[in-house]
Amino acid sequence: MSTKYCFGIDVGGTTIKCGLFNTDGNILDKWEIPTRLESKGANILPDVAQTILEKMDSLKIKKQDVTGIGIGIPGPVDENGAVDMAVNLHWGKVNIKETLSELTGIPVLAANDANVAALGELWKGGGEGYHNMIMVTLGTGVGGGIIINDRILAGSNGAAGEIGHAHVEDAIKDPCNCGNCGCLEQVASATGIVRLAREELSATDEDSVLRGGKISAKVVFDAIKAGDIVACRVAERFGYYLGKALAVFACVTAPEVFVIGGGVSKAGPVVIDYVQKYYRQFAFPACKQAVFALATLGNDAGIWGAAKMVLQ
Amino acid sequence: MSTKYCFGIDVGGTTIKCGLFNTDGNILDKWEIPTRLESKGANILPDVAQTILEKMDSLKIKKQDVTGIGIGIPGPVDENGAVDMAVNLHWGKVNIKETLSELTGIPVLAANDANVAALGELWKGGGEGYHNMIMVTLGTGVGGGIIINDRILAGSNGAAGEIGHAHVEDAIKDPCNCGNCGCLEQVASATGIVRLAREELSATDEDSVLRGGKISAKVVFDAIKAGDIVACRVAERFGYYLGKALAVFACVTAPEVFVIGGGVSKAGPVVIDYVQKYYRQFAFPACKQAVFALATLGNDAGIWGAAKMVLQ
Repeated sequence: MSTKYCFGIDVGGTTIKCGLFNTDGNILDKWEIPTRLESKGANILPDVAQTILEKMDSLKIKKQDVTGIGIGIPGPVDENGAVDMAVNLHWGKVNIKETLSELTGIPVLAANDANVAALGELWKGGGEGYHNMIMVTLGTGVGGGIIINDRILAGSNGAAGEIGHAHVEDAIKDPCNCGNCGCLEQVASATGIVRLAREELSATDEDSVLRGGKISAKVVFDAIKAGDIVACRVAERFGYYLGKALAVFACVTAPEVFVIGGGVSKAGPVVIDYVQKYYRQFAFPACKQAVFALATLGNDAGIWGAAKMVLQ
Repeated sequence: MSTKYCFGIDVGGTTIKCGLFNTDGNILDKWEIPTRLESKGANILPDVAQTILEKMDSLKIKKQDVTGIGIGIPGPVDENGAVDMAVNLHWGKVNIKETLSELTGIPVLAANDANVAALGELWKGGGEGYHNMIMVTLGTGVGGGIIINDRILAGSNGAAGEIGHAHVEDAIKDPCNCGNCGCLEQVASATGIVRLAREELSATDEDSVLRGGKISAKVVFDAIKAGDIVACRVAERFGYYLGKALAVFACVTAPEVFVIGGGVSKAGPVVIDYVQKYYRQFAFPACKQAVFALATLGNDAGIWGAAKMVLQ
């Protein structure tokens, strides 16, 4: 029997990451192409189709040996594989699944990029071996992905897992990117941690290495390792907000594992320590023992998860 | 072809509700038997088996014409149909599915009673026509049931949908039944509304019909209809806590509909008005238009949902 293949594609605002997998779940090749945003992103799916077809041609892979293409998109993808809008790609309504399968002649499955990355981490990353997971991506914003019995939860409108927009603080009066005020993203993302640091610094005269220079999440967590008291208070507040929010989410889906990824997670296990402390305090007793793990696949989580969608 | 049947059973701490259905989804008979708690509840499943077999005998229904028994249990039922403990039934570890199917010779599906009631409301009640739902039961406590694509979400340990134990208020220092402090149940259940009323009354000298007599959720909502200002403030706080919490839950599963049931919901649409107001304020934009509906099946939701499990 000939080898069967699938593709995992992760479309970002700058580059499109591509992976070729065999159906045993091994990655055979990995490459990137640029995301062309001009003409309202009209070239994006044709470019994806072209790079896939070229790869098949160069490796002499026949169409009948490709079981499918999985693709992650930065936007709310509904269960039909369509988006109403994907602002980062300059897209309005696009049916990704139909369009890309017409362009390639290969079956396509499409989902939100954060959800796809969550599936990748469940399959081969921090959540390996579990079946029910909440993934939290702490970057410029806070993204999320909910996995139920090994499957992505899309929700009625593709908005499931938008945990960065859970309301956590009434006192915040400036708006989040979503238009609401007091979202988790405003206190637990990389930019949220900077907000907390500025608040702590202005509330005290204490010495801190955070004073003067440029503040970032990395600077805060480095300062903690150096014993900076103000930085520790910033991390406590970050952990309080995020740990408490994750405890509330656990009342909904009762996950076995939380996987923490994104740029902030590069500070390492110390991030989990602060979050887990408050999670255990606030979680429903039956959920308190959920496992916390760091994401391990980095920027490759999307292509792994996209391939896994096809292989399920 | 002969008619096929199924049974829907809802085990409570006082009575066991039983329904006989045909596989077209019509209810043919409905009755109750007492819940015998003595001997650590050892009689409960044998009593259920006996009443089912007697009903089949009296109606001359053959075993091969019964497709299954669905049963709801007050406790966290895992995906194998087992509980580690069900305090209201005085049970320790019981595999409901195995035990009841051995006693009857009929296939059994078991789930948590609140989840089963949610499925009933989705099928034939307030959530009819939808596929993704969060059910909220406002009784002595706050129960919940999460439906994803027409199916009950059990969660990794049967604890999904325990939304009454979402942490919503740091200022509450007395413990909830679960052992934590500040749970949704402490401010949004029938007893939670009484707590809020006592707090409002002690914070003001204003006249109120709530003063003096016995306070209950019904008294509060009746007072609102009579224009009582203090009662209105109580309902605002109730709506704020519950509406805000539901907005957070919506970031996780993005439901199409919230169905509100339990004793408090008997006050009618006014309950939804207060909750929906704050839900719309705090919800992620893509989730703001979720529908709110009152439960319609009352105490029968459990037998309907239990039957639906079998028919899925």
